[in-house]
Order: sequence, then C-alpha cells, then structure tokens
Amino acid sequence: MKDSIRVTFLGPAASFSHQAAIDSFGKDDSVSLFPSVSFAEAFSAIQNNDADYAVIPIENSTNGSVVQTLDLLADRQGSNEDVIVCADYFLTVQHCLIVGARPVNKHKEDSFNSINKLYTHPQAWGQCEKFLSQHFRGIERQDVSSTSKAVEIVAKETSGREAAIASKLAAEHHGAFVLQEHIEDRADNTTRFLVLRNRLSKQSSNITSFLKTGSDTDEPKKKRKSLISFMIEHSAPGALADALAVFKKHGLNLTSINSRPSLIRPWQYIFFVECEHVPTANDETCISDILKELGTICHACRSIGSWIDGRDLIA
Amino acid sequence: MKDSIRVTFLGPAASFSHQAAIDSFGKDDSVSLFPSVSFAEAFSAIQNNDADYAVIPIENSTNGSVVQTLDLLADRQGSNEDVIVCADYFLTVQHCLIVGARPVNKHKEDSFNSINKLYTHPQAWGQCEKFLSQHFRGIERQDVSSTSKAVEIVAKETSGREAAIASKLAAEHHGAFVLQEHIEDRADNTTRFLVLRNRLSKQSSNITSFLKTGSDTDEPKKKRKSLISFMIEHSAPGALADALAVFKKHGLNLTSINSRPSLIRPWQYIFFVECEHVPTANDETCISDILKELGTICHACRSIGSWIDGRDLIA
Repeated sequence: MKDSIRVTFLGPAASFSHQAAIDSFGKDDSVSLFPSVSFAEAFSAIQNNDADYAVIPIENSTNGSVVQTLDLLADRQGSNEDVIVCADYFLTVQHCLIVGARPVNKHKEDSFNSINKLYTHPQAWGQCEKFLSQHFRGIERQDVSSTSKAVEIVAKETSGREAAIASKLAAEHHGAFVLQEHIEDRADNTTRFLVLRNRLSKQSSNITSFLKTGSDTDEPKKKRKSLISFMIEHSAPGALADALAVFKKHGLNLTSINSRPSLIRPWQYIFFVECEHVPTANDETCISDILKELGTICHACRSIGSWIDGRDLIA
Repeated sequence: MKDSIRVTFLGPAASFSHQAAIDSFGKDDSVSLFPSVSFAEAFSAIQNNDADYAVIPIENSTNGSVVQTLDLLADRQGSNEDVIVCADYFLTVQHCLIVGARPVNKHKEDSFNSINKLYTHPQAWGQCEKFLSQHFRGIERQDVSSTSKAVEIVAKETSGREAAIASKLAAEHHGAFVLQEHIEDRADNTTRFLVLRNRLSKQSSNITSFLKTGSDTDEPKKKRKSLISFMIEHSAPGALADALAVFKKHGLNLTSINSRPSLIRPWQYIFFVECEHVPTANDETCISDILKELGTICHACRSIGSWIDGRDLIA
C-alpha cells in the first residue's frame, strides 16, 4: 500500500485552514491531515520534511494580507530556505451562529433572544456586523484565539445563553448546533490559502496528482503564477519602477505586491511580487531570466515557487 | 491672546502617539493636546474641524504598516475626504520596565526576581524579547490594550510583584517607577507618525510655523514627500509597472508602496504610493501633472497630501 501523504494546516482542528486542506486534498485514507499550532510550526514541518504539504492563509479579500505568512516567506534567518509555494486555494468564508445544543424554542427569534454572550475570533466580528447589529446589539462579546475555540467553549453550554460565530465544520467537529447559516456581511468574503512544499522533496513534487480541485492534464493552457521576493536600495530613484518593468518586459502580469520591513535597517523593505502568465512552448527559462535581470537592479532576489492558479484548477 | 491650536493624538494619554505629539508641537499654553480613543475618531476630529491636527502612527520599522491608518486614508465611504497629511515624525521607540513604586531591594536583580507578572501591549513583547528571555523566562504575561494601560495597572500595585513594559512618558504620567530603561532589542526600532489636517482649514494651513521640529525658512532646499492613492484593473497586464513609471518619469523617487483591499470586489486593491523629490523653481504643478497622467492608466487617483520630510526638518 502506498504511504499516505502528510498534510499539515494552521490549527486548531476545524479552523478555516483545516477546511481549505480538506477541500484541496480530501480526507480519505490516502491523506493524513494534522494541525500545526502556529505559522512558524507549519513552515518548520515543511523545511524538516515532517509534512509533505502545509496549508496556510496568505490573504483575505476584506482584511488584506496575513503578515505572519509574509514574514516567514521572507525567511530573514535563512531557516526555511527550501519552503516553496506549489498551489493556492480560494475559500469562501461563511460564518454560522452556533449554540451548544438544539434549542427548545420553536422560533429562531426566541433562541436569539435568550443568547446573552457571544464568542469568536476578533476578525469575525467585523465580518458579521450587519447580522450582529440587527439581532445582538449590546450583547457581551468575548474574543477568543480562534473561531473553532469559540465553538469548543459554547459546545459545553446547553442552556442556549451562549453562542459562537464560526464555520459549519467547527460546529460538526465539536458536536454543536448551527442556529443560523450565512451570517457574514459580504457573500464574496474569501480567504486565499497557499500550499507549501519542500523544494528538495520528491514525494511532494507532483502536487496536482494529489489535489482534489483539479489536475494538470491540460496544464500548458492554464495560467501559472509565480512568487518572487527582492530588496531594493531605498535611496535609488525609480528602482521599484525599474524592477516591476522587468516583469512587464517578460510578459508577466502582476497580481499582487506586498512589502515587509527588511529588519536589516529601518525603512528598507523586502518586496513580494506575485505575477501570472500563460506559458508558451519556449518560456521554460522565464522565471530564471527575470531573476537574472532583477539581480542587476535589486538584491536578495529569490523565487518562492510557481504554480497553476487555484481558480484555474477548479474551472 | 491667540487661540491655542488643538492637536489630537491616538490615545490613551501617555501613548507613543502622545509622545510624538509633544515632540512635534510642544506642550506649552499655545497647544491644546487631547486623546482620540480610536483611529476613526482621530480622522473624524479632523474632518469635522474638532481638531486642527491629528498625530497617528503609520508604520513601525520592525512591525511594518499600520493597516487601520491605511484603511482610513483609503476613505472608501467618502466620509473623510478633506483629511490630508501635512507632516510626518519619526519617534525612536524606547521601552522601560516599570513598577508601581521605588523598590526596597538595593540590587536590581533582586527587584527583577520578585516580579511574577508582566503587562504590556502584544506588539511590545516581540520588541523586548532578548531582555525578557534573559531575565523573565517563564514569567506570566498579560496582554493589555496599550502600553500606557499596562502602567496604569501596575501603578496601583506597590508590592513589586507586577511590572509593565512601556515608555518613560507612561511611567511619569501614572506616577510609576522606572526599574530599567532601554530594554528594547533594537536600538533603531522607530515608529513613523503622520500629522493630519483638514485641507479646507485656514487655521492649520501653515503647519511648519507650529512644529517644534523645524521651520520652513529654507523650505525650497528640503525634500518634499507626497502620498497618492489609486486603483488599477486587476486584469490589465503591466498596469502597476506603468503607474510607477509615471512617478519615475516626473523625477519622484518611491519611498514606500502599500496596498489594501478595495472592498469593491475581491483581489482588487487600493495602492498607496509615497514618493519624494527636491522641488525646483518650476515644478509647482508636479503632483497635479502626475495625477492627470495616472488617471489615464488607473482610476480613483487621489492626492492625500504633500509635506517636508520629517527627518529633513530635524536635520
């Protein structure tokens, strides 16, 4: 029997990263899914080959970039140098109002009225503000470390006086009851996750054969994304414009740009540029050509992976 | 007697923004300093002319951008459209270990040993990690909403068992005792603050006459910075490279670039570009020329202020 692939995700169990990992890899016997307690632990698991893949959030369409992930990708200490991105996955974030047990009240409004305390992760309040201001104005709010943790707390409380805001997966995982689905303000609230692997690992080298979301059979027609990081001299006029012009010259469209402090000296940054293109027969050296040319303008240029756009895989 | 100018800062009292406001405007009778409880309140105070100036953090050299400030500058609802940047100020962030009263122990190490609980803002732990791991390994840590709040708590406790990590200003403000200064890991840990004003206000139109950090007597020789925001079509290849090339063409050097979700649709961004140049006699129309040209490539282009570099004022 083939060994199962080992996929870690940003925990705890039943987190949105867990959902993204299940959607991407499935949850049958061929996949061993396990949580990492922190972003850093997920990166270490890949660097040390304790996992084949890691699923971590990189960006939310409402809240923006996840800086913990950017800082680990920056790899300022050189401790995660073999960690690369091999896929991404877009998860629509849907929140539910969750209580410990099926309520005795027949009418939903009565159940709402008996709730006097709410639990969730700080980010989730802002994502459900319309629903909360309509039904729970002035009700006590308790921040907790994760939406899954919020359900763990209310699952022990069957009086119906406490409720959590979290995913359906978290309700299932903790055996709690979903009182109302889809309480998020924006139907298009989406989190993008990166799938990481070790660039030296053979076991994880063919990611698309493991993905439930698509295959690479018609890979050449699909858009490829690449992630490249570099530093520029703060004082060099136009250096960033020149760097971005290199991507344009090679036919690559920028899909995002982020910067983080270099931590070498104040106001010097590491830039992360994500770009996409549809590969042609003779552009195998595209990324290495770009890196070579970038190297004449910037320094510390690194390729952090190339992969097929997650939305193209689903389509 | 001339009316005093009204300067609000991101509170509470004795916050780092308070320190930046004192450094920038002084604290004599001509200045009325008062805290705003939130970033949004500081912006509203400027928009509604309830304050002449507001001092808020925009970026820390270790932790990166302050997204709350970027989101308010984005002004997606059009509720702060008259708020502009008119100065910036760089504050070296120095942390102290603070206790409620002068310790009875003669030796500092003995005072350290009697501490069994520490309080500070979550960001400060990471800025003092070396000192903490040397002297306070395994000691309980309590997160609080601000470093000033941490001092408020320990100031009531004179047994020497609780300590706060905060600024000297916070210790003075709450009548607490500084046990050790300069416990931060990096001597160059710096926060940059923006000074905001209402673009329609006459009272606040000559910022440099109010600043303690410098004057505009030799303004023409000093570097001016400008902040411009715009949106680009996600699908337009090379649009960001083209936009940045406009700045370069007009001789402006980019000093930072940030993006935040547009909240119009997922994966569309508002970009914030900060750039600098030394003005020449005939470049009065420089920024409006750039905005005009940017408008042919991007949309929602806005100028959010031009000012003399805070480091140039001090120099």
